[in-house]
Amino acid sequence: MLMSELSRRSDVPVATIKFYLREGLLAPGTATAATRAEYDDSHLRRLRLIRSLLEIGEVPLASIRKILDAVDSEAVGLHDMLGTVQYALGPHVEAEPADRLEVGRLITELGWQVSPDAPGRDLLAVTLAALRRSGSAPSGASLRDYAEAMSRLARREVAGLATIDAAPDRMALAESAVVGMVLHERVLIALHRLAQEDASASRYSRT
Amino acid sequence: MLMSELSRRSDVPVATIKFYLREGLLAPGTATAATRAEYDDSHLRRLRLIRSLLEIGEVPLASIRKILDAVDSEAVGLHDMLGTVQYALGPHVEAEPADRLEVGRLITELGWQVSPDAPGRDLLAVTLAALRRSGSAPSGASLRDYAEAMSRLARREVAGLATIDAAPDRMALAESAVVGMVLHERVLIALHRLAQEDASASRYSRT
Repeated sequence: MLMSELSRRSDVPVATIKFYLREGLLAPGTATAATRAEYDDSHLRRLRLIRSLLEIGEVPLASIRKILDAVDSEAVGLHDMLGTVQYALGPHVEAEPADRLEVGRLITELGWQVSPDAPGRDLLAVTLAALRRSGSAPSGASLRDYAEAMSRLARREVAGLATIDAAPDRMALAESAVVGMVLHERVLIALHRLAQEDASASRYSRT
Repeated sequence: MLMSELSRRSDVPVATIKFYLREGLLAPGTATAATRAEYDDSHLRRLRLIRSLLEIGEVPLASIRKILDAVDSEAVGLHDMLGTVQYALGPHVEAEPADRLEVGRLITELGWQVSPDAPGRDLLAVTLAALRRSGSAPSGASLRDYAEAMSRLARREVAGLATIDAAPDRMALAESAVVGMVLHERVLIALHRLAQEDASASRYSRT
């Protein structure tokens, strides 16, 4: 397809597509004349990936670049690629050693295999410390309930990925894994906000 | 306390505190001399709230201003205040009508009380549409499982809020509710990422 069709089908303006091409986020098309190039489904898929990360995931362009580098590198296995995605996602915070230790104990207790420098450890530790300061930290039992709910969902998501092992190529699989990883988080956030509204409506709407 | 102590205890630089004062995000202290003012625990609490929203919640300053306006307005009930927080949080996306309809059906099926213009509806609709395009959308049954897990967590969180009805003042309660709302979401995100790493480690680390 020509760039105009790529723009129409991806709902991304031509100027933005040209920007992604210049920045190397999108591979060049196949030149068919001095000023014409053909694009295919891989370009469409890549554009949708970029737009999903940017608009729904609110992932900054610099982090998207790191994620796409991992997607494009044949040498990176899927587990390490998912790790790269996690490192690229914010917020980037640094926890106090005591708070990190507490999270480490929780992870050990849960029997989770999580690398010692996973950024989720710091995010959890900083967040729990802030909740404690405001007097609304979840109890240890609540936290384990949360963790077990998240574990069930994550296992289901990763199992879902396995079914696309038969995907036409590594790139399609890698892209789908990235989309799944970032967007399942947004599904959770959206459902959690809707559930909070419902819970608050039941509890507070009369006050 | 003087501003220097407020800075030390909140871990926010003096220049930043002065910026928040100028911007009206923080109430002025009590003047004790031409160039001296006294600050109290309410200032410390407010600074911690701003920093938590900014650094952990990644909420932009313009949205924090809207949230604080709702916190400060005596006329706003807790349910409406939580609504304001939800509207202030991103990402702000607009879904296709057909996708919105599908989310509406899910909410009806779940029996949730959610306002027709809740932004979580659009976020969920847009995210599910993007997942569908990448071939990794959760099934209807999975989605209901996610929703029920989120509902249990949200009810617990809102019930936790109720126990601080005995809080010294409305402001402390409102601030704690805001912190709880935004940070519980981050607890979920952090646990979900850690759980994804664990699930991926079990499934993929040998590939």
